[in-house]
Amino acid sequence: MGGDLGPLITIPAVITTAKKHPNIQFLLCGDIDVIQSYLDKSQLQNSEQIEIIHCPQAVAMDESPSSALRHKQQSSMATCIKLVEQEKAAACVSAGNTGALLAMSNYYLKTLSGIDRPALVSSIPITDSHRVFLLDLGANVNSDSEILFQYAVMGSVLAESIEGISEPRVALLNVGTEQMKGNDKVKNAAQLLTDAPDISYIGFVEGNDIFSNKADVIVTDGFTGNVALKSSEGLAKLVVSELKRLSEASWLNKVLAKIALPLLKSIVKQMNPDQYNGASLIGLRGIVVKSHGNASSEAFCYAIEEAIRQATQQVPIRIKNRIETLLIERP
Amino acid sequence: MGGDLGPLITIPAVITTAKKHPNIQFLLCGDIDVIQSYLDKSQLQNSEQIEIIHCPQAVAMDESPSSALRHKQQSSMATCIKLVEQEKAAACVSAGNTGALLAMSNYYLKTLSGIDRPALVSSIPITDSHRVFLLDLGANVNSDSEILFQYAVMGSVLAESIEGISEPRVALLNVGTEQMKGNDKVKNAAQLLTDAPDISYIGFVEGNDIFSNKADVIVTDGFTGNVALKSSEGLAKLVVSELKRLSEASWLNKVLAKIALPLLKSIVKQMNPDQYNGASLIGLRGIVVKSHGNASSEAFCYAIEEAIRQATQQVPIRIKNRIETLLIERP
Repeated sequence: MGGDLGPLITIPAVITTAKKHPNIQFLLCGDIDVIQSYLDKSQLQNSEQIEIIHCPQAVAMDESPSSALRHKQQSSMATCIKLVEQEKAAACVSAGNTGALLAMSNYYLKTLSGIDRPALVSSIPITDSHRVFLLDLGANVNSDSEILFQYAVMGSVLAESIEGISEPRVALLNVGTEQMKGNDKVKNAAQLLTDAPDISYIGFVEGNDIFSNKADVIVTDGFTGNVALKSSEGLAKLVVSELKRLSEASWLNKVLAKIALPLLKSIVKQMNPDQYNGASLIGLRGIVVKSHGNASSEAFCYAIEEAIRQATQQVPIRIKNRIETLLIERP
Repeated sequence: MGGDLGPLITIPAVITTAKKHPNIQFLLCGDIDVIQSYLDKSQLQNSEQIEIIHCPQAVAMDESPSSALRHKQQSSMATCIKLVEQEKAAACVSAGNTGALLAMSNYYLKTLSGIDRPALVSSIPITDSHRVFLLDLGANVNSDSEILFQYAVMGSVLAESIEGISEPRVALLNVGTEQMKGNDKVKNAAQLLTDAPDISYIGFVEGNDIFSNKADVIVTDGFTGNVALKSSEGLAKLVVSELKRLSEASWLNKVLAKIALPLLKSIVKQMNPDQYNGASLIGLRGIVVKSHGNASSEAFCYAIEEAIRQATQQVPIRIKNRIETLLIERP
């Protein structure tokens, strides 16, 4: 039910993904009448792939996390997360209120042992052959060096299991690459990572290195990570809208833009955050994938695909095992 | 002498700017032989506009700030800053080592009364008619809410005096726009700004709002500001290099790119950080402008122009007056 447009976006995405993955079952949590009306319009043959779980409530996009947690236990969001907790679902995908999703996931699923706080992570496609896992994107606005260390471990496991990178290069985001740069938090986290076996820690990287091929996993606190991702998205949107404005600014430009359309489309596609839609909430005893609230149906498909990948790769168990090994081996 | 290419870049920029501003005197601090050899190649008529101050030392780009401060008191950087302190120069412009420039400026010039820490600020052109002043870009990696408040005041004065904006809209960078969002630091700074008369505080903005037209001044700590700016620059560079790659990827693309060249050039220009080269160090008893180390000669001109604007507008005195008024009026 969540997101700016709700089932108008999410149901068509489910139908598309169900056709692509005939072996996957979908439990749609929400208002049965609304969901059924959208399903009726579809041409899905195998209706046994989809089951509706009626929920009398929905979390509003502007609702506070504490209010959602207290008053919306019958909501589509809470129901979906509880299905994961009860192991009736392998993963939860939502385009709803991020704060509420974080609070409810934390409350119902709990963090893995050894993990103090879950993180929001996204894998951003930089080139056709390189993706970077950036975390935390805003799950926690306060995080100390121990938390940054845990993020690094989780990011490393994700890059390995989802992208199949062996020994992913893990870096800490900082204001400079020299050891003396930064605040105590990153300096201490750097020490923890240097001492950790099984983590290929490569040192500090700067903001521009998110878009280079220096690291596979880039770790930072939720405040900085959120700002870094949103700043880049803001610039991307500005470029696309400038491109549009320029293309319509004059008769000559209109013609030029028409001619260069295939080229311009490639750039716009490159800059479209839709293609990496789906931030994952990791560090929990279950899989939760968060789609942009304003995602298109196509973008919501990416979020579902991400959930399928994580479930197939059993990401939470892998993180749990890795963290346990590292904690035991730690001095 | 600073920057990746030193006088090769800085001297031609001085010559260009001197021709444009015949009433401005330039004191060139550095190795007299090197500077003279570059000047000899130029065709500047009025040589009285330029005076060379010979300095036997230069700060290396990778030198630590503390080492520079201790061992490089005869350097071009130290000499230039001391000329400002002695009021023999109206402003210092450098493409050198940022950390050393910060440390030396702080040491020789001192902060204005009421200002605890200087900040690095840049005005980023968003559209033809809108610029945003973003600070701090990395002068301090630790800053509390009081420091954020001082940044806001300084940014507001800059936007007024440099861009001529009356009542500039001042915002705090945060992970969300709702009052409950963020850490204690931004929440407390928001309270200080809400209570301050003479500051048009408009609330929280998110990373993407840097590139919208929501605010004229956006305030954040040096860690986040540095990462936000560099992330955006990294994305901009990626787009430009992708555009180049695509334009050369096939015979057809080559032709398309040639035809659409004027359009593509506009995009590349839009994304070129050169056009806002020149971060200013503000909050000091003198004007210091920092150019990118890898700036082109054209970009270094922008840094000099920024110094001229700040000197003409007497920015330090304006900040001092505004801070004093606000501190007196404060409850």
